[in-house]
Amino acid sequence: MERVTRRPVSDGLEAVLGEPMPVLDHGFVRVVDYMGDDAAIVQAARVSYGAGTRTVQDDRGLIRYLMRHRHTTPFEMCVLKLHVKLPIFVARQWIRHRTASVNEISARYSILDREFYLPSLGDLALQSTTNRQGRGQALADDDAQRVLELLRGDAELAYHHYETLLNDDGTGAPRDPDAPQLARELARMNLNLAWYTQWYWRIDLHNLFHFLSLRADKHAQLEIRRYADVIGSLVERWVPHAWEAFVDYRMKGGALSQGEWRVLREALGGRPIAEALASSGLSAREKREFLDKIRGDDA
Amino acid sequence: MERVTRRPVSDGLEAVLGEPMPVLDHGFVRVVDYMGDDAAIVQAARVSYGAGTRTVQDDRGLIRYLMRHRHTTPFEMCVLKLHVKLPIFVARQWIRHRTASVNEISARYSILDREFYLPSLGDLALQSTTNRQGRGQALADDDAQRVLELLRGDAELAYHHYETLLNDDGTGAPRDPDAPQLARELARMNLNLAWYTQWYWRIDLHNLFHFLSLRADKHAQLEIRRYADVIGSLVERWVPHAWEAFVDYRMKGGALSQGEWRVLREALGGRPIAEALASSGLSAREKREFLDKIRGDDA
Amino acid sequence: MERVTRRPVSDGLEAVLGEPMPVLDHGFVRVVDYMGDDAAIVQAARVSYGAGTRTVQDDRGLIRYLMRHRHTTPFEMCVLKLHVKLPIFVARQWIRHRTASVNEISARYSILDREFYLPSLGDLALQSTTNRQGRGQALADDDAQRVLELLRGDAELAYHHYETLLNDDGTGAPRDPDAPQLARELARMNLNLAWYTQWYWRIDLHNLFHFLSLRADKHAQLEIRRYADVIGSLVERWVPHAWEAFVDYRMKGGALSQGEWRVLREALGGRPIAEALASSGLSAREKREFLDKIRGDDA
Amino acid sequence: MERVTRRPVSDGLEAVLGEPMPVLDHGFVRVVDYMGDDAAIVQAARVSYGAGTRTVQDDRGLIRYLMRHRHTTPFEMCVLKLHVKLPIFVARQWIRHRTASVNEISARYSILDREFYLPSLGDLALQSTTNRQGRGQALADDDAQRVLELLRGDAELAYHHYETLLNDDGTGAPRDPDAPQLARELARMNLNLAWYTQWYWRIDLHNLFHFLSLRADKHAQLEIRRYADVIGSLVERWVPHAWEAFVDYRMKGGALSQGEWRVLREALGGRPIAEALASSGLSAREKREFLDKIRGDDA
Repeated sequence: MERVTRRPVSDGLEAVLGEPMPVLDHGFVRVVDYMGDDAAIVQAARVSYGAGTRTVQDDRGLIRYLMRHRHTTPFEMCVLKLHVKLPIFVARQWIRHRTASVNEISARYSILDREFYLPSLGDLALQSTTNRQGRGQALADDDAQRVLELLRGDAELAYHHYETLLNDDGTGAPRDPDAPQLARELARMNLNLAWYTQWYWRIDLHNLFHFLSLRADKHAQLEIRRYADVIGSLVERWVPHAWEAFVDYRMKGGALSQGEWRVLREALGGRPIAEALASSGLSAREKREFLDKIRGDDA
Repeated sequence: MERVTRRPVSDGLEAVLGEPMPVLDHGFVRVVDYMGDDAAIVQAARVSYGAGTRTVQDDRGLIRYLMRHRHTTPFEMCVLKLHVKLPIFVARQWIRHRTASVNEISARYSILDREFYLPSLGDLALQSTTNRQGRGQALADDDAQRVLELLRGDAELAYHHYETLLNDDGTGAPRDPDAPQLARELARMNLNLAWYTQWYWRIDLHNLFHFLSLRADKHAQLEIRRYADVIGSLVERWVPHAWEAFVDYRMKGGALSQGEWRVLREALGGRPIAEALASSGLSAREKREFLDKIRGDDA
Repeated sequence: MERVTRRPVSDGLEAVLGEPMPVLDHGFVRVVDYMGDDAAIVQAARVSYGAGTRTVQDDRGLIRYLMRHRHTTPFEMCVLKLHVKLPIFVARQWIRHRTASVNEISARYSILDREFYLPSLGDLALQSTTNRQGRGQALADDDAQRVLELLRGDAELAYHHYETLLNDDGTGAPRDPDAPQLARELARMNLNLAWYTQWYWRIDLHNLFHFLSLRADKHAQLEIRRYADVIGSLVERWVPHAWEAFVDYRMKGGALSQGEWRVLREALGGRPIAEALASSGLSAREKREFLDKIRGDDA
Repeated sequence: MERVTRRPVSDGLEAVLGEPMPVLDHGFVRVVDYMGDDAAIVQAARVSYGAGTRTVQDDRGLIRYLMRHRHTTPFEMCVLKLHVKLPIFVARQWIRHRTASVNEISARYSILDREFYLPSLGDLALQSTTNRQGRGQALADDDAQRVLELLRGDAELAYHHYETLLNDDGTGAPRDPDAPQLARELARMNLNLAWYTQWYWRIDLHNLFHFLSLRADKHAQLEIRRYADVIGSLVERWVPHAWEAFVDYRMKGGALSQGEWRVLREALGGRPIAEALASSGLSAREKREFLDKIRGDDA
């Protein structure tokens, strides 16, 4: 339903408001509400810095300045409210971000649907041999098939038993009048971490950027990254200048330590990098990570 | 400017959006933006409690239930953004509420205006003799006049010297070419706590209720209470059901300790209160506060 | 190892420091560190209220005053750090408290042990018929046995397949050299919500009281209540005055709405409660809850 | 008083516990209590990353790894509690850090002492001509003398009138029996922003590092930087490995945007920087800031 408002309006978000954007096999992200836009960031900054911001002519330049110098409070003036459907193991990573408001469906009150996450064949991968938390090479197709069957079989069995324990025909009456109806808060223990849950999630833009910088990162688990990527595309629609600055300075930018700067300045002065590194005092691991950054393998 | 939106709209707030509501002699509160309404609270609660909320038929009843049982997260789904102009000593109390986003004008960047708070004659009061943090009886009129003159005189002198120290004609050029222009961040030290500052302040409804429960309370300083009262009237326009529940359960409700409940139950059973109190183990102060509550002197 | 310190020391907590207190079948709570004691609360309050606190003679009285009037910041000066082992469905409720610091074991990095929660026979109960989120009557013994067998069977199968998917002999080498080693972050999806996880959890006393007021409450799920009860006993050892005040004012105290106060005052004035209620404007549900409070059925 | 404890002990902090470290003319920072040490950070990290941290052999290396990769939660396991005396204008900057607990002396309850901040001659400086929020060249000595006299005169007058308004002889009785005693909460309005206040401030190490990265920075106002520097020296005593990593990666490290990395890689490949910058798409301001970083003028 369309209504008239005197508040800032984001055409980009209005176009997708309420529409579920699919993620994984049964999940989605849906914009429920929002507050503010690029201009709201600028407005808040101009209050704080007053005349100090006059030297920056345009909104885009000011937003880049704020991002570069980590003046973060103006970004808190924008707020996004999403409805998300996601597997429980993803929800467990997600909820670690404490600066958001959450209302999650409760399996103490409600009976969960028969919906669990099964990776696509191409997403099933070996344990990485170089990174203890990561995923390596994709599985061979027949191996992947066997894994999927096993995951699906256990999930279906678990749900079948969940229903047996609940013994509820959907109206609250027992399916089997001779069997007990176990409390919901107990029966749900039998569901596994691939099960889908849902929540409303409200967060301000500064904290959302922090979330995205960790969860759209290559070190994040693939499944949560898929959500972060969709949310990123929504943020781009909503606050295009802030998004551009975020990508430039955070997602595709990178930091150097004091020691790395020293090496870098020597290298720019003409000294061979290997030589500068050798006398830098950096550890072997730090040297390796530095070279990755220099080559752009880090992005 | 009017725009079309598919988001929830509060007619009550739209009517006053952007309009400064005067507070004290130079202050104001102005709604800049908002997100959500009573229905958004209900929507979030129904996600959490699912079928469990079906037994409560209507929105008003559900909101009262949430407030009564301190299910606070659904109230976090509503957000208010205000522009406030307020004396610094009020700002210092206000900022203690940490769960809000703030962008304040900076006197390091900008030159503050010649605006300071002077209480009205009727608001000037003696130190309370019973409450170490409170205000007692109003001053006699001529005493009040003398106080005002003294406050005004010091403030005007301070501002005059602030201008002398800055030595800025408004364009950045010196008024007195032979005198230095002291750094703004130093000159502002000379202004007193009655000076007006401004900020954008964004907070969710749950935390706003917490703010109001402390700052619209009779123990709060009169000046911040005036702001809280105006904000309260805005909240009433915005989320009338939530406001009603808040007033009933928080503002005009009250808590009893285990010992007070015991006395109360004895009294309802017919025992004289004085007798029940005598054997209650409550301290003299606790007894006094209990009797105030019973008589309704606490509200 | 014993060391000398000039900081406040709590003898009550030192006696149990590092010692796991068992909870449920495989869980525990263990104090790792703490900061402050009752005296630290008083010290912080006396800074804030200065001379204003002189009228309250002793520490116990001042702490009760702070609790009664919701002066909460002095309680934030005490900090507790626990090591907790708990089932994932309990962890999911626990983590909703955002004002704590958490370091949880990661199943992306580590292989979880074969430890899952199985309720004791007496804790298995029917879905409540009056409360959609609650547990009703205990199951008959043979029904309970069947439930346990089913829960144990599914958990054991899930763990067996988890091991199959990981294909790791404990040294990182494959058990079955012809099978793949699925990434840990994927294999863990097959474990259910009864699985034990572990974390370090740091929280200040004010926020811990809020946690306990919700999680030691009769509406909390039995399993998390068991943890809250053990933590409560640790808090009692640590800050006995604060604990006593908390129990009196929060755990065993209770709030009344404006309308309930009106009924109560009429009743104390001699009007029959039923009559006062009839004209009170309270809803049927509010009346029922009021009578429960009056009778003490609410505690 | 010395006591025995089984908690981690920091010898560096025990040596200065309770001792005020002077800052500015009347201020101080004093360690009241602390929790944790470098080993506590490592302990929390090893819980999270489990076997994943085995590859990093020593504590120092692991702490550097955590800092480099912004694994911030283990740093939250350390907590510091300070008693600070500071001018109100410094307190107003300080309090913007919301992730701390604060108990401040209240001028509604207590009468403040005659203590206000006067900069030393050398700290009085002109408004910067290049930076709207900064301090430029020092004042000439006689100019500085005139500024000090003016600041001192106004402060003394303000305090004299504060005392007149309070009309309190220190015991609560009036000095002038014919004059009123204005409420403290009103009289304090007459004090200016140079006045000293005091508070207890509790913060965890992660958030303290964030505070220091902003307040020990060259863009911070000199006066708060003095406090940050003293706190930094306390942190160095407390958690030397974490401090070293913080200095390397945050204080003396620095970030580059996507565009800056591109220029840098071209320059390392042999292209002249000026040429690489010219085709970079960076704004004039961004180019200038980049060159400052490259030259090390940014630190």
